[in-house]
Amino acid sequence: MSAKNSFQPAWTEKPPKTGSYRSIFKWGGPAEFKHPSSAWYAMIKETFGMTDADFKKPQLEGNEKVEVKQAISLSERQISAFMDIVGKKNVATDDYSRVKYSHGKTIHEAMDLRHNIVRHVPDIVIHPRDKKDVRRIVDYCNAQKIPVYVFGGGSSVTFGLQTPRAGVTLVMTTHMNRLLSINEFNQTARVQPGMFGRDYEEALNQAPERFDTDLRYTGGHFPQSFEYSSVGGWVLTLGSGQASTYYGDAYDLVLSQEYVTPAGSFKTLDFPATATGPKVNDIMKGSEGAFGVLVEQTMKIFRYMPENTQRFAFMFHSWDEAVDASREIMQGEFGFPAIYRISDPEETEVGMKLFGIHGTPIDSLVNLRGFKPMERCLCIGTTEGEKGYARHVKEQITRICKQYRAMSLTGYATRLWEKTRYKEPYMREDLQDYGLIIDTVESGVTWDNLHRLHRGARAYIKKRPQTICMTHASHFYPQGTNLYFIFILRAKDLQDYRRFHDGLLDAILQNGGSISHHHGIGKLFGRLMEPHLGREQMDVLRVLKNHFDPHNIMNPGGQLGLDPP
Amino acid sequence: MSAKNSFQPAWTEKPPKTGSYRSIFKWGGPAEFKHPSSAWYAMIKETFGMTDADFKKPQLEGNEKVEVKQAISLSERQISAFMDIVGKKNVATDDYSRVKYSHGKTIHEAMDLRHNIVRHVPDIVIHPRDKKDVRRIVDYCNAQKIPVYVFGGGSSVTFGLQTPRAGVTLVMTTHMNRLLSINEFNQTARVQPGMFGRDYEEALNQAPERFDTDLRYTGGHFPQSFEYSSVGGWVLTLGSGQASTYYGDAYDLVLSQEYVTPAGSFKTLDFPATATGPKVNDIMKGSEGAFGVLVEQTMKIFRYMPENTQRFAFMFHSWDEAVDASREIMQGEFGFPAIYRISDPEETEVGMKLFGIHGTPIDSLVNLRGFKPMERCLCIGTTEGEKGYARHVKEQITRICKQYRAMSLTGYATRLWEKTRYKEPYMREDLQDYGLIIDTVESGVTWDNLHRLHRGARAYIKKRPQTICMTHASHFYPQGTNLYFIFILRAKDLQDYRRFHDGLLDAILQNGGSISHHHGIGKLFGRLMEPHLGREQMDVLRVLKNHFDPHNIMNPGGQLGLDPP
Repeated sequence: MSAKNSFQPAWTEKPPKTGSYRSIFKWGGPAEFKHPSSAWYAMIKETFGMTDADFKKPQLEGNEKVEVKQAISLSERQISAFMDIVGKKNVATDDYSRVKYSHGKTIHEAMDLRHNIVRHVPDIVIHPRDKKDVRRIVDYCNAQKIPVYVFGGGSSVTFGLQTPRAGVTLVMTTHMNRLLSINEFNQTARVQPGMFGRDYEEALNQAPERFDTDLRYTGGHFPQSFEYSSVGGWVLTLGSGQASTYYGDAYDLVLSQEYVTPAGSFKTLDFPATATGPKVNDIMKGSEGAFGVLVEQTMKIFRYMPENTQRFAFMFHSWDEAVDASREIMQGEFGFPAIYRISDPEETEVGMKLFGIHGTPIDSLVNLRGFKPMERCLCIGTTEGEKGYARHVKEQITRICKQYRAMSLTGYATRLWEKTRYKEPYMREDLQDYGLIIDTVESGVTWDNLHRLHRGARAYIKKRPQTICMTHASHFYPQGTNLYFIFILRAKDLQDYRRFHDGLLDAILQNGGSISHHHGIGKLFGRLMEPHLGREQMDVLRVLKNHFDPHNIMNPGGQLGLDPP
Repeated sequence: MSAKNSFQPAWTEKPPKTGSYRSIFKWGGPAEFKHPSSAWYAMIKETFGMTDADFKKPQLEGNEKVEVKQAISLSERQISAFMDIVGKKNVATDDYSRVKYSHGKTIHEAMDLRHNIVRHVPDIVIHPRDKKDVRRIVDYCNAQKIPVYVFGGGSSVTFGLQTPRAGVTLVMTTHMNRLLSINEFNQTARVQPGMFGRDYEEALNQAPERFDTDLRYTGGHFPQSFEYSSVGGWVLTLGSGQASTYYGDAYDLVLSQEYVTPAGSFKTLDFPATATGPKVNDIMKGSEGAFGVLVEQTMKIFRYMPENTQRFAFMFHSWDEAVDASREIMQGEFGFPAIYRISDPEETEVGMKLFGIHGTPIDSLVNLRGFKPMERCLCIGTTEGEKGYARHVKEQITRICKQYRAMSLTGYATRLWEKTRYKEPYMREDLQDYGLIIDTVESGVTWDNLHRLHRGARAYIKKRPQTICMTHASHFYPQGTNLYFIFILRAKDLQDYRRFHDGLLDAILQNGGSISHHHGIGKLFGRLMEPHLGREQMDVLRVLKNHFDPHNIMNPGGQLGLDPP
């Protein structure tokens, strides 16, 4: 090995210091890391004109102890009223809690925290024990006009957790985090919204041991944030899991919900279908804490049969062919794959480096067979369900991919991808330690507009010099899919980045994409809601907001663009 | 043949007289009939203690010419304003139009009309030419506080078309009845809401000839009212087709909708998925004309591959086994059948008589194999989609049914059922001509409550002497199904029937069913909405109603139970 290759960038390997800013913005488990592969490292140096020398000492790591300048504006009396409700130990007023529970994983927030900038904090943080606590808290806040924010897994990338009006933040993951019961007849699980995705899935997988069921179950929802997002957050922000093409989006997975709102508490009907007017269950989905607090939910669950999972991967000659084949697959009426993802040419190259395909015999074979770099497109996926179904869907996918001149890579590439499926976000910190930003923006799109949106958003991103832009589609429907843009760039400062990011969203809107396919709106995209939906439809959301929350105490300050003018 | 067997009841074979009440309440095509089979005839005579002598002369046929006593309360000026908008020939003030376009197919309405009783009529009937007309009409009505009712196919069985506050009725099927375009990329059809189901399906099937598409399509929606219901009505009342278990309910089939409401016009987003807050598209589904007028809709469509349809039929030893097998099928993760229907013991007996299985070799074989009358349960269905998928789903269904000791009847019984699938409602008139009522009520239910609801509703119905009650489940989900109760009885008068019907709905609610699975609410079930949903959720619907329609001009008088107090 040459001296050059033996250099190892000084990626941070230490868990962040307790009480530090870094411990707040760092993704995932404190002691968990995933560093860029050596091929990625080489790519980054080349793209940004950097050398090994630039990767010797991480910058602006945010290791400082969190400090809050904002005074607590609630009175002693108000604070003790909350303590009376939930008990003293479930009310926190310390600086660290106030910052931790008001920040998500938006890159903008990480940039601020690295500079020890704290723009917003709640006055206090409350850990409600149950829905009765939530009812009493909301009643009190409504009477006293105290803003109420809700914190689940904390994985928001849309300023969903920001607390611009201070007030209180309710942390749902501390106590309200249990799987309450499994109904095997109905294949449903009654769950508290503060349960983390990983815990939820584990409990379902272990249902016979924990709930004395006959069968094992899965929730079918595996977003990249799976380990650090909450079951309630999935529904409130309309998330999608990596296997959504088969299992459905969070929207499809909720049978009923129970809410505490300033206008009252209620549990929606839990019929599998009912023709009783507009469905309140659906009206509440995606309300992002602006209508009330989700306190319980009944989720559809599925039989857990991992032994039936089939994997496949293909290389296409072009993006056009990958898209056409995918459309044929999704409209073929033979069932649906679970995971299904196609990468555009740039993501294919970058992804092969990331997943470790680069330099393997597969890589050589792909080159040999004439699949050209920056033209070829990777497709990976799985089929699940009953054994014969999984097999049949895979056979049909294979048939169609071959018809579109794709080459099978076997399930190997998919296995490589699976290893890192939840780990990729960890690279954020590594890159940012050296002044680089990796971030994502995503959009829903119909088939007939896919190429226009892809070209339009890419053109905007690539206009910026030295910018890597990877695109994939990963959630499929017969009528269309999503486009997920991942970009790596260097930004002078937050303002520079913000300008770029805002412009990208505008470019997506101008090219007919939706503002978000599954990240939600939060406060970051709120300004785009009215241009996107039009005044008449925003008025519908506003009238609902005003009904549930006439004093605008629920997640005020821009969520969903719903603040009264 | 004995003399007794050769008697033929005097079922009416003549199309109703033009302009008669009968021409309004008679189901379907004027010259189309389906009479009870001879086995049914025998059953009816036995149940109700009737003899051939009772079936010699039909009674209260409603052959009289329609007459309206209600004066037109709109002023000349108002009527000519409408004429200015849509043209004189698209405004009708004649008695016949006023009655025809304010009556649906609720049995109560037929009872009234047979007695020449007309309780409600609109002042005038308008046939809008396009959405611009609708916009101008709604604006004018909103300014003048004139009630607006909307009439599609006219198949409502919930008083959905009643006009208790007079005003105007818009008939959507006259002009706004076209398939506007097919988007083959997205597999969507842009359609006007006044298109009849049969025309819609025919146009999709013939898409290559009519729209120059590559493929043929199906809408996947086949309610029993298919021929005489409108595409808009499906969405507004949350209908389900007979193949909904595969294709989804009307709710699932609409990608986007365009509305004219007093609060403005808008078209909802048409992304296959989008995380942009509560979905206005979903808020409008099931609004039953109480929020505004649906003027255009984009429907998901499917590839039309009838050559792949597989049929199956089974006989189970018991209702318990039929239900358990069905649950296993719907939760098996191998895809879904298209049509799937299980009949309870009484429907099985009556159905075998209706579909003509009674007395065939199948009947003998079933008896021989020990499937006992009033215990055994019939299951019929189809699988559709891609060939291998349809085959695989059928194989799995067969495997599971056999596991539950069911006997295959081949696809023969299903073919028999298919022949009459849209024709059964015609028997209404035959029975009513001899003083008997056949009517239906249906409910959504979770698996764990199915038996309770079945027993509870049946107990109520059978408490009434001389009452036939057939029950089936015909729309399936992993989480549950629907129960569809068909009953034949004799009622002294409308009041007697109404008391029975109201009591049945109460029994359904008391036993945990939904008020409606796919018939909708209309004005007939409006009173049950608040007990069913609770005040908090009704308030959500009320606030939407008040937003869209502050003067309560849209379908006022009880629709969805939404009138202001």
